[in-house]
Amino acid sequence: MFEEITVIGAGRAGTTIAARLRERGIRLGEHGELRLLCVPDRAIEQVARSVEPGPWVAHVSGATPLAALEPHTRRFSVHPLQTLSKAGGPEQLDGAWGGVTAESEEARARGLWLAETLGLNPFILADDQRALYHAGASIASNFLVTLYRVAADLVERAGAPREALVPLMERTIANGFQLTGPIARGDWSTVDRHRKVLHDTDYAELYDALAEATQP
Amino acid sequence: MFEEITVIGAGRAGTTIAARLRERGIRLGEHGELRLLCVPDRAIEQVARSVEPGPWVAHVSGATPLAALEPHTRRFSVHPLQTLSKAGGPEQLDGAWGGVTAESEEARARGLWLAETLGLNPFILADDQRALYHAGASIASNFLVTLYRVAADLVERAGAPREALVPLMERTIANGFQLTGPIARGDWSTVDRHRKVLHDTDYAELYDALAEATQP
Repeated sequence: MFEEITVIGAGRAGTTIAARLRERGIRLGEHGELRLLCVPDRAIEQVARSVEPGPWVAHVSGATPLAALEPHTRRFSVHPLQTLSKAGGPEQLDGAWGGVTAESEEARARGLWLAETLGLNPFILADDQRALYHAGASIASNFLVTLYRVAADLVERAGAPREALVPLMERTIANGFQLTGPIARGDWSTVDRHRKVLHDTDYAELYDALAEATQP
Repeated sequence: MFEEITVIGAGRAGTTIAARLRERGIRLGEHGELRLLCVPDRAIEQVARSVEPGPWVAHVSGATPLAALEPHTRRFSVHPLQTLSKAGGPEQLDGAWGGVTAESEEARARGLWLAETLGLNPFILADDQRALYHAGASIASNFLVTLYRVAADLVERAGAPREALVPLMERTIANGFQLTGPIARGDWSTVDRHRKVLHDTDYAELYDALAEATQP
């Protein structure tokens, strides 16, 4: 659908996407029929305005609306719903999903093509729902890091190895996020024991907010 | 070290542990040299008191101190640091870590033997640090379920499939909990966008508490 794509931006997303496109035999030239903006969210508007009208223009941001691609009208977005490491290659995209946002049949077909070419499992994402969607995605990934760091700090203070948490967290996902532990059992004396030991740490309020949000 | 063990309690932990001991050729009789209490935390004291002094007595709770095993003095604890599903078998213990708490060399040797027999990677856990340790473990597993449920609710409200979050969360762990996303990038306008859409949901305070705890 596109034989030549210009990937703009060489951060984690741009590097990974360019590597995958190269793997799939797409030419990565300067005059691509698609200009694919892999730049920070706040730079999208400015970079879009610097592109001469003519080619297709797309971005890979999760939260940014398509209006940021003004003045272009041949436009869409594909958001790879994945956390990317600089150490990894295009295989990081395998198995991940990709949100495709478009305003026309033609743009949607091109977005779906790009998502599939990248190796993503595509779904359609409404432009006015992107912020809500991206808030969910950030909670799932970024705050998972936060949970681990907090938990690792606590188990280490207790003299236990932080890596002991990893099989626990992996299986929590593998078990389909079944809730176990004191809240699931209605074991409020254990929850109170947690509250008591956390009282003197920085995590007391965070524990309360999470416990409050946890439905048995 | 123990040829016969009496497993008391047939919940998730008791069932899984009994199945593993059977696999390893340990006899599961009523008169075991070890009485292994796999009962709810709040029942440990009472059940321990119902055991005639003589055999070794141990529990598998994360947060409960050894004193709950009074009047027994030949006692220890092995806490499998894992979330267990009723649908799974003893293989659920493979790869998990196990906290061993003991007050004597002899008890420690027995606790380590039990952890290893169960297939756990053992570490020594101080009795007075159990509550802190267990608070960390609960945060890592139980609140991971909470995060997923909150994130899944949000992405579904946005029309995206909740299962799209699973490869994202798996890779967040596989990447060694590297922080990516708006907070890592210092992209506060995206964080503000999240706050704005979450304002009318039940998750506004939780988001703020987690964002506050997230260090770039």
